[in-house]
Amino acid sequence: MEKTRVEPKTLPGFMELLPNDQIRFNEIKEKIQKSYEKFGFLPLDTPIIESAEVLLAKAGGETEKQIYRFNKGENDLALRFDLTVPLAKYVSEYYGELSFPFKRYQIGKVYRGEKAQAGRFREFYQCDIDIIGDGNLSIMHDAEIPSVIYTTFRNLGFEDFTICINNRKILNGMFEALDLSEKSADILRIIDKIEKIGKENVIKELKEIEVKEDKIDTIIKFLEIDGTSDEKIESLNKLGISTETFKQGVNELQTVIKQIRVCKVPEKNFKVDLSIARGLDYYTGTVYETFLNQYKKLGSVCSGGRYESLAEYYTDKKLPGVGISIGLSRFFYQIDKENILKNENKSISKVLVISMNEEQIGYALDVATTLRNANINTEVFLEDKKIKSKFKYADKLNIPYVAVIGEDEMKTNTVTLKNMESGDQKSLLLDEVIKEIK
Amino acid sequence: MEKTRVEPKTLPGFMELLPNDQIRFNEIKEKIQKSYEKFGFLPLDTPIIESAEVLLAKAGGETEKQIYRFNKGENDLALRFDLTVPLAKYVSEYYGELSFPFKRYQIGKVYRGEKAQAGRFREFYQCDIDIIGDGNLSIMHDAEIPSVIYTTFRNLGFEDFTICINNRKILNGMFEALDLSEKSADILRIIDKIEKIGKENVIKELKEIEVKEDKIDTIIKFLEIDGTSDEKIESLNKLGISTETFKQGVNELQTVIKQIRVCKVPEKNFKVDLSIARGLDYYTGTVYETFLNQYKKLGSVCSGGRYESLAEYYTDKKLPGVGISIGLSRFFYQIDKENILKNENKSISKVLVISMNEEQIGYALDVATTLRNANINTEVFLEDKKIKSKFKYADKLNIPYVAVIGEDEMKTNTVTLKNMESGDQKSLLLDEVIKEIK
Repeated sequence: MEKTRVEPKTLPGFMELLPNDQIRFNEIKEKIQKSYEKFGFLPLDTPIIESAEVLLAKAGGETEKQIYRFNKGENDLALRFDLTVPLAKYVSEYYGELSFPFKRYQIGKVYRGEKAQAGRFREFYQCDIDIIGDGNLSIMHDAEIPSVIYTTFRNLGFEDFTICINNRKILNGMFEALDLSEKSADILRIIDKIEKIGKENVIKELKEIEVKEDKIDTIIKFLEIDGTSDEKIESLNKLGISTETFKQGVNELQTVIKQIRVCKVPEKNFKVDLSIARGLDYYTGTVYETFLNQYKKLGSVCSGGRYESLAEYYTDKKLPGVGISIGLSRFFYQIDKENILKNENKSISKVLVISMNEEQIGYALDVATTLRNANINTEVFLEDKKIKSKFKYADKLNIPYVAVIGEDEMKTNTVTLKNMESGDQKSLLLDEVIKEIK
Repeated sequence: MEKTRVEPKTLPGFMELLPNDQIRFNEIKEKIQKSYEKFGFLPLDTPIIESAEVLLAKAGGETEKQIYRFNKGENDLALRFDLTVPLAKYVSEYYGELSFPFKRYQIGKVYRGEKAQAGRFREFYQCDIDIIGDGNLSIMHDAEIPSVIYTTFRNLGFEDFTICINNRKILNGMFEALDLSEKSADILRIIDKIEKIGKENVIKELKEIEVKEDKIDTIIKFLEIDGTSDEKIESLNKLGISTETFKQGVNELQTVIKQIRVCKVPEKNFKVDLSIARGLDYYTGTVYETFLNQYKKLGSVCSGGRYESLAEYYTDKKLPGVGISIGLSRFFYQIDKENILKNENKSISKVLVISMNEEQIGYALDVATTLRNANINTEVFLEDKKIKSKFKYADKLNIPYVAVIGEDEMKTNTVTLKNMESGDQKSLLLDEVIKEIK
């Protein structure tokens, strides 16, 4: 019977990997997970589908347009577009059953119907941690987050990266002090251009929106703050700004920097950066961005910060939090493209057991069972192919050892173990094989 | 500003767990994954959204009604309802880049808009393995699958379970021999009722659909086959049926049983069961079902079999396969409800570090860093709460050790380590803490 065939095509914007890349991807995902668990974050796995009403309680504008939303029967449904809204729902829904501070990680897929382009995905993994307080949340949690980032990226094999830290209260407090809060959006837009247009043009544009000269003076002094993290904090204290918000921001930043050192994050891996995260309005205190120093063009690979209120759309409980997120799919795509973590060959199996002839297949299965019981991932080549094809299979799958079994091996209860990288081979008893491979 | 609040509700039919249960769920998921990897299956992670045309190439009837299907822009999309169709797509799409036999596992969520009821989920995990051949696939793969099932359920902590094995060709071959293939659906419907209605009524009903007496005789003889696995195979050989299909089926079954023993699966954990999987028309050879003997009412917890053709809707390549699946969400729900694997308290953190006062928080972070570097999951209680609340937190999260730090401990570079289960506590140096906990 002739079948009508459909072309087997994965949708654009959806990452789908070949096995070797999938193994690499999973290794990174698992390292992130283990790093998060090292700090005691609890796992969470919320549904991918939520009621649209719940999921879009807060959303609006661009986000809403990107959302996968649809009806099933009478239900108005949507796919989660981040892991923060599901967390807000979860904490509100199970509030009475959770212990606070509630520390959770979630690693899962989220969905955004963005315009598909290289490195932009419509389905992608986010790896989030958040710490949620019940009413209050100590600044010490903000101080521990960089230690999580540091541990995670070290475990991933990176050394040369910088965690940039700022506090939103500093800029807000300065605008308050200068009585410029109303104009803050315009001012931010202008000062963000300083590297492009230069100091003189910034001053000119600030004048154009009627910022007084003495205030421009303070702003420029702020923008010119430089030096080590400690020097920057000292300079902030010398700006002569005395609003509560500003002082709080500087104090918090100082506490965070102090405790990062206690957590033994090396000086080269963090710094105060007063220019980061000016644009976001979700964060209210500490903010983080993380850069691979040799690949700055990748942008921040791990960002986050402190927020006043996680779930105000679901509950009247005050739930402040601090968290970070790694956009894993995009990150993997980038480091793969730039060959940053070396595009290594990976294998699930440690050994491929090969029999010379059909007669030895039973013994091959027997050998494999013994190796598996010794906790060695082992595969048996069970197809009736030429010996060359069998070796080729091991080679293509990057399996590091091949255990060859012929008539002689079967008689003597041995195998001929070939190291596929060095090409060495020797006749060994099973105990010796286990030792050799481990 | 007053917010309009939305009730935070998870949709019915969507599993969402509290942290302790989530830890248990993840442990089971990871054990299944590690078991699959022990046999060299490669990981796969296909998108949850596929083009409806691709996903529904084969579907029809009940399945199609349950599918989450929707438009986004001009695209007709659907959520995967199993992991087999995505595998068929994947193997067809990347055929040239894969090595055969292609062995993959996939553990992921699938979606079916079923009527929500206890233990039935609309979003649920499936844990699949499949081995796909290019043109041919040796029966030896069918023989190794029970070893995967055995290893998996042993790793999950089960002992008393039975893998039931049959071969579709046996029944098909018998119907061919009796020239009853046309009536096979009706006959199957009748003989499936034998335990309920008894032998005499089966005979009566078979007569009613005009099956001749000598043929009924053979069918009844077949149904009455009993004994050990080997005795059943012997009885099959004695039925006097000589069609190629029948003989192949018996031979394949015999080979599978022989090799299961080579793979050291104990006799009590498998058996030939000629009554299983009569109903499915997807499978064409070996079929498997797995039962927990003390909880038969759960139904089969791991099923699968051999199929002729994985991807005929996508490719003209002949791709035979054999595989099994565990419906993890339902399985977890069931074993949880029946308290089968003991509803244990679990924890991510091994230690909670507690400081008596704010002054020791720095030292507490320092201690935690040292423990984490020794590969111990460690949490610091950073909120300014009474000491009793801090212990209560450890207790609620089932954290097995609390390291208390006060003025004295800080001076002497020690901690007071309390074993939360026994209540014992002792003053220890950090090296000793690490030893104690490990």
